[in-house]
Amino acid sequence: MNKKTLKIGIVGLGSVGQGVIKILQDNSELIKKKTNTDIQIIGICAKDKNKKRDIAIHKYKWFDNPKSLAEDKSLDVLIELIGGEDGIALEVVESAISSNKHVITANKALLAKHGNYLFGLAEKNKVTILYEAAVAGAIPIIKTLRESTASNDISALYGILNGTCNYILTSMERDSITFDEALEKAKELGFAEADPTFDIEGYDAAHKLSILASVSFSQSIAFNDISIQGIKNISLDDILAAKDYGYKIKLLGIAKKNYNKLTQNVRPCLVPSESQLAKIDWEKNAVVIKGGFFGELTLSGPGAGRLPTASAVFGDIFDIINETNYPSLGTPLSNLSENISSDNYNEKARFYLRFLLPDVSGTMASITNIMAKNNISIDDITQRISKKMFKQNLVPITIITSTTDFVSINKAVEDINKNNYSPISPNIIIIED
Amino acid sequence: MNKKTLKIGIVGLGSVGQGVIKILQDNSELIKKKTNTDIQIIGICAKDKNKKRDIAIHKYKWFDNPKSLAEDKSLDVLIELIGGEDGIALEVVESAISSNKHVITANKALLAKHGNYLFGLAEKNKVTILYEAAVAGAIPIIKTLRESTASNDISALYGILNGTCNYILTSMERDSITFDEALEKAKELGFAEADPTFDIEGYDAAHKLSILASVSFSQSIAFNDISIQGIKNISLDDILAAKDYGYKIKLLGIAKKNYNKLTQNVRPCLVPSESQLAKIDWEKNAVVIKGGFFGELTLSGPGAGRLPTASAVFGDIFDIINETNYPSLGTPLSNLSENISSDNYNEKARFYLRFLLPDVSGTMASITNIMAKNNISIDDITQRISKKMFKQNLVPITIITSTTDFVSINKAVEDINKNNYSPISPNIIIIED
Repeated sequence: MNKKTLKIGIVGLGSVGQGVIKILQDNSELIKKKTNTDIQIIGICAKDKNKKRDIAIHKYKWFDNPKSLAEDKSLDVLIELIGGEDGIALEVVESAISSNKHVITANKALLAKHGNYLFGLAEKNKVTILYEAAVAGAIPIIKTLRESTASNDISALYGILNGTCNYILTSMERDSITFDEALEKAKELGFAEADPTFDIEGYDAAHKLSILASVSFSQSIAFNDISIQGIKNISLDDILAAKDYGYKIKLLGIAKKNYNKLTQNVRPCLVPSESQLAKIDWEKNAVVIKGGFFGELTLSGPGAGRLPTASAVFGDIFDIINETNYPSLGTPLSNLSENISSDNYNEKARFYLRFLLPDVSGTMASITNIMAKNNISIDDITQRISKKMFKQNLVPITIITSTTDFVSINKAVEDINKNNYSPISPNIIIIED
Repeated sequence: MNKKTLKIGIVGLGSVGQGVIKILQDNSELIKKKTNTDIQIIGICAKDKNKKRDIAIHKYKWFDNPKSLAEDKSLDVLIELIGGEDGIALEVVESAISSNKHVITANKALLAKHGNYLFGLAEKNKVTILYEAAVAGAIPIIKTLRESTASNDISALYGILNGTCNYILTSMERDSITFDEALEKAKELGFAEADPTFDIEGYDAAHKLSILASVSFSQSIAFNDISIQGIKNISLDDILAAKDYGYKIKLLGIAKKNYNKLTQNVRPCLVPSESQLAKIDWEKNAVVIKGGFFGELTLSGPGAGRLPTASAVFGDIFDIINETNYPSLGTPLSNLSENISSDNYNEKARFYLRFLLPDVSGTMASITNIMAKNNISIDDITQRISKKMFKQNLVPITIITSTTDFVSINKAVEDINKNNYSPISPNIIIIED
């Protein structure tokens, strides 16, 4: 094999951008040994040249204008690590593609919103967009779905896709602390951003899920079809009650095929404590693929972080060096189906419900009567102790239902609210058995 | 993308060979949709044409001579699914490569023994050998190591690589049955072969480990450097004692880099019951990769079986269609290092020991004295009840040591044997904490 050269440009020098430079600095010998290729950083660009950074960047050529770098004649691959669904990230990626450069990006928000357009633009310009780092950090889930399991009809894909939420939920359970306390701790330790809205409200996991669903089911990316629920309403009481029932609460992204329709959900779920997913704690991510021929595959590892994510960027760089011709989404764009979504209403599952009821006799009987009237059987009903709630003279009651569906659950809750039995609307969490 | 054609030939129509045909029959539409390629079986070959099979094969051209198929002018890819480290498998693969055909194989024994030679032959003939199906069934471990984690210095790789052994060990633990009973059950259910020697003595796991170690550490395949120990000596008493200590016994393949030297071991290990690997039960496999930048990745799923393995074969077919240029072992052959092996003697670990001692006073004191003389501290020593052993007037004693090494352990056991304290040599199992 002849020695080759690959010229890359990096736009965005936050955590991951610096990680990419660090890997190249630390492991250039190993990378040359494996690829017979000299990877050269021909330019870097970020908002602030003089910001204090952990990695020395002075030896690389600085571009003030990211589009100049993207369009630089000598460039082979633009690596976009700015983030954000619009703005500069979008402009830079468009410029690079239009100038016939390959693009590597870790930007899930951008792909969730503009992926269909950008992949089309790339196909037209005969370049590729690779994005392993956009989903689940170092876990090679895109490559696995696009390449290894490609001959299979995937029936479902689900996983823990957001490290911040998983960190908070684990922390609440292990340290018996509230959501707010856990969030503060996560911020202190760098596992949550100053403004954690995107993570804790489930949007980040949904961005990732929309990409995974597209690759798994050969459909266009359909972020807007995802039903999204975050973890803000999960209380320590829920975590403890779940534990008592033999479950952990995890924020899952789930895409399921059902009679050719796809349901995509991001939502907190109760998963059995003994399941593999329940063992994925703290900031770790995991993805489970269920498919026709292989049954079930599980991939787990660090879902974020400077070096794990940069390692995924290098997987994409290796793909470009080795000239793989896979379509970016695993299926050529012209063969992708439009997404046919279905709602969750017919989904059969067991549910966990937590009510806060006035401590007066008869309320519990009324609740159970309404459940029965809506054909919901109850597997367990337990009155719990919560100091905080006692002060308000409200008693937490948890219910585990038998298998039912959202229509029945919603109807029952409506009836309960109508009759004012429960002054605070109950917390409803689906059980993924 | 223009429609293409890929012409394949299948040699070996056992379980996996039939699985490949079944996937092509069942999912040809999906496969065409993803690849714009028409995959045609231009010939099949096996020992016995008229053997009863689950899959209809009459519509494919039969070759009596596998080498004729391998050398057929129209062939693009030969798929070798015969098995065996020498003989016809080797001849067919040599013929195919010499005739400039790509080869896909699930044959770990062949690659463990002749891989270095065959990959060299393939490089000379500008064709590729792909072998995802040879290791851990549907788990995409080869692709992950060769491509996704390629920029990383891997420090260790270990996993459950043999479904038969894992099935037997799980069965002993769950059903409280002996090794022989569990082996019989595994045979009945198709999880062990009529002659299970290769599996239970650890050779199959070692074949796989030799390949994984080569890809992980950019070294030539060095099967002969693996220290191999099977599971025949694991008794139900060991399983139960381990459980009591909070561990499960798993047969692990482990390759570790230590000061540029590589240790490769296949051996039963105690792993903490709460660890991810301990949750990999029955015929499932799992591989853990530990590396510089990403920390730890775990891949788990079906490690064998007709369709999971055939699904991995299709991953390789997709790679050939998409013309990936990765070197087969992840590193170009001329850049591979010779394997520099090191023995286990300096390895520091805790150990589990099970003695069968005569039920006379003073023996236990003698044993603990000898341990102390060899600088081995004891974390736990327990006398156990085992009906079978009581008949022989022998009492099972289990010991968990503090961190020590094989030199000390072997020396202590030698001293114990010299003094005839233990009529049966103790069972020694390393603890992987």
